[in-house]
Amino acid sequence: MIRIIILGSGNVAKHLYKAFMNIKAINVIQCYNRKGILLHPDQELGDITNDLQVLKEADLYIVAVSDDAIKTVSDGLMFNDRLVVHTSGSSPLHTLNNANKRGVFYPLQSFSQQKDIDFESIPFCLEAEHEKDLALLKKVAGSLSKNVYEISSEQRNTLHVAAVFANNFTNYLFSTAKNICDTQKVPFEILHALILETATKITEIDPDLAQTGPALRNDTKTIQRHLNTLSNQEHKNIYQALTAAIQSKHGKKL
Amino acid sequence: MIRIIILGSGNVAKHLYKAFMNIKAINVIQCYNRKGILLHPDQELGDITNDLQVLKEADLYIVAVSDDAIKTVSDGLMFNDRLVVHTSGSSPLHTLNNANKRGVFYPLQSFSQQKDIDFESIPFCLEAEHEKDLALLKKVAGSLSKNVYEISSEQRNTLHVAAVFANNFTNYLFSTAKNICDTQKVPFEILHALILETATKITEIDPDLAQTGPALRNDTKTIQRHLNTLSNQEHKNIYQALTAAIQSKHGKKL
Ligand SMILES: NC(=O)c1ccc[n+]([C@@H]2O[C@H](COP(=O)([O-])OP(=O)(O)OC[C@H]3O[C@@H](n4cnc5c(N)ncnc54)[C@H](OP(=O)(O)O)[C@@H]3O)[C@@H](O)[C@H]2O)c1
Ligand SMILES: NC(=O)c1ccc[n+]([C@@H]2O[C@H](COP(=O)([O-])OP(=O)(O)OC[C@H]3O[C@@H](n4cnc5c(N)ncnc54)[C@H](OP(=O)(O)O)[C@@H]3O)[C@@H](O)[C@H]2O)c1
Repeated sequence: MIRIIILGSGNVAKHLYKAFMNIKAINVIQCYNRKGILLHPDQELGDITNDLQVLKEADLYIVAVSDDAIKTVSDGLMFNDRLVVHTSGSSPLHTLNNANKRGVFYPLQSFSQQKDIDFESIPFCLEAEHEKDLALLKKVAGSLSKNVYEISSEQRNTLHVAAVFANNFTNYLFSTAKNICDTQKVPFEILHALILETATKITEIDPDLAQTGPALRNDTKTIQRHLNTLSNQEHKNIYQALTAAIQSKHGKKL
Repeated sequence: MIRIIILGSGNVAKHLYKAFMNIKAINVIQCYNRKGILLHPDQELGDITNDLQVLKEADLYIVAVSDDAIKTVSDGLMFNDRLVVHTSGSSPLHTLNNANKRGVFYPLQSFSQQKDIDFESIPFCLEAEHEKDLALLKKVAGSLSKNVYEISSEQRNTLHVAAVFANNFTNYLFSTAKNICDTQKVPFEILHALILETATKITEIDPDLAQTGPALRNDTKTIQRHLNTLSNQEHKNIYQALTAAIQSKHGKKL
């Protein structure tokens, strides 16, 4: 039985708690958060504390608090030489106090309160200072998901930047597409199938091979017509910047 | 029985031919293309022509040729007052010669030779000069797909621009994310689940509500660290342009 203590009561803490409930080999023996709130209605009140001083002995402490609070919380732990991990994509391993054995247990997905999470396909990016700790993290992550990776702090930082492009910036383009549709009262849902197809395709072929459109073809007539269609200056700027980027990338290849 | 003639032998022509084969109420009675090639191995040789002068009488002529060739091909038709449509997202209805009754039959999806198409969820954007013709197009599109829309030429142009953001530009961001992963030998597949989730989410909630990330939070420390991580100047430029765009959009709302 692997004994786990979860620190924090946000999105990640709650989703992890719920997921671990279904894993026989794992027992979340205690939870800490500032307000002493339950992570799940079925949790027993006695398993919750708002006092770092009364934390039990466990095999793994998961610090799932805001990035800014990881240091404070890990500095406040009253024990040594136990395995303490954070769940952040953007904080290095050494954010954690080195009085304990450190690690990272980062689920690469966006969690929100409302939405249920199916952990099975969520990639876990793991890091640990010691082989034995890494093995334990692999066991815990592997009980939730089939996608488990060993990733260094440097790689994780790179991955986090890549995720900004793949998620935040992509979502901004979707919102822009919706705004453009709105100008002519075109239902945005017409684009849903194309958007799903665009995302699915890059799981099958290299995105460079999937590139199409007027920028790639250097179809200046269409590009000009599109720019004339756009009334919002911000949309024009982004259209021009991305068209130039696609041309510079694929032009270089010719 | 609706009698259809397909003109062209490219991606769209072939996929439409194949899809119509399964529709009882539709009969593709003839096909035209310059080289006189079959659109499908099961097609009979006698149903193919490379001569516009011998086209039979049909209820609907679908001109699925390159955008630049729509005018030439429709000018070459030897009959009047029949229903002739093109399949282009970016060409106005009046590209077609007005000797015939004109329309547009635009399937909004990217077709490629290799990949089978499931038409059922592909949105069809229809336009026609006459109500009766529109009704016929709705019947034909409705036999293939459950997503059928009446869209004016102006709306279609807007939709085409929006599709560039939602597909071409998005794909470029995916390819950039992959390049960034490659610099640190991080497997790009780690991002697949996030990318699929990002796309699925906007079919459920407004993309503006789905926006997250350092740009939205105005997390200047993280933004600076990301810019330092990026070694490629083009990637830095895009990062800055999209960060500014997200801030300008969401800042204005506050
Ligand atoms: N959300 C995601 O999509 C996601 C995905 C992967 C990884 N992560 C990472 O997971 C970690 C937690 O993220 P989250 O989304 O769960 O955050 P969240 O929902 O915003 O919750 C943050 C938690 O941190 C606690 N906290 C903040 N300051 C604290 C302090 N000084 N002392 C003790 N507790 C403090 C908060 O407690 P109060 O309720 O008392 O304020 C709250 O329980 C972060 O490192 C984040 O980068 C998040
Ligand atoms: N591909 C897509 O994803 C997609 C999606 C929606 C709509 N569309 C639209 O559908 C139409 C066809 O696109 P596509 O992708 O099927 O194109 P494609 O695969 O490139 O095929 C173009 C076809 O046009 C023919 N053609 C070109 N010039 C011609 C001329 N002067 N006279 C006669 N035939 C000529 C070609 O004949 P040859 O083989 O003899 O050269 C070929 O059969 C376009 O309007 C396009 O905008 C395409």
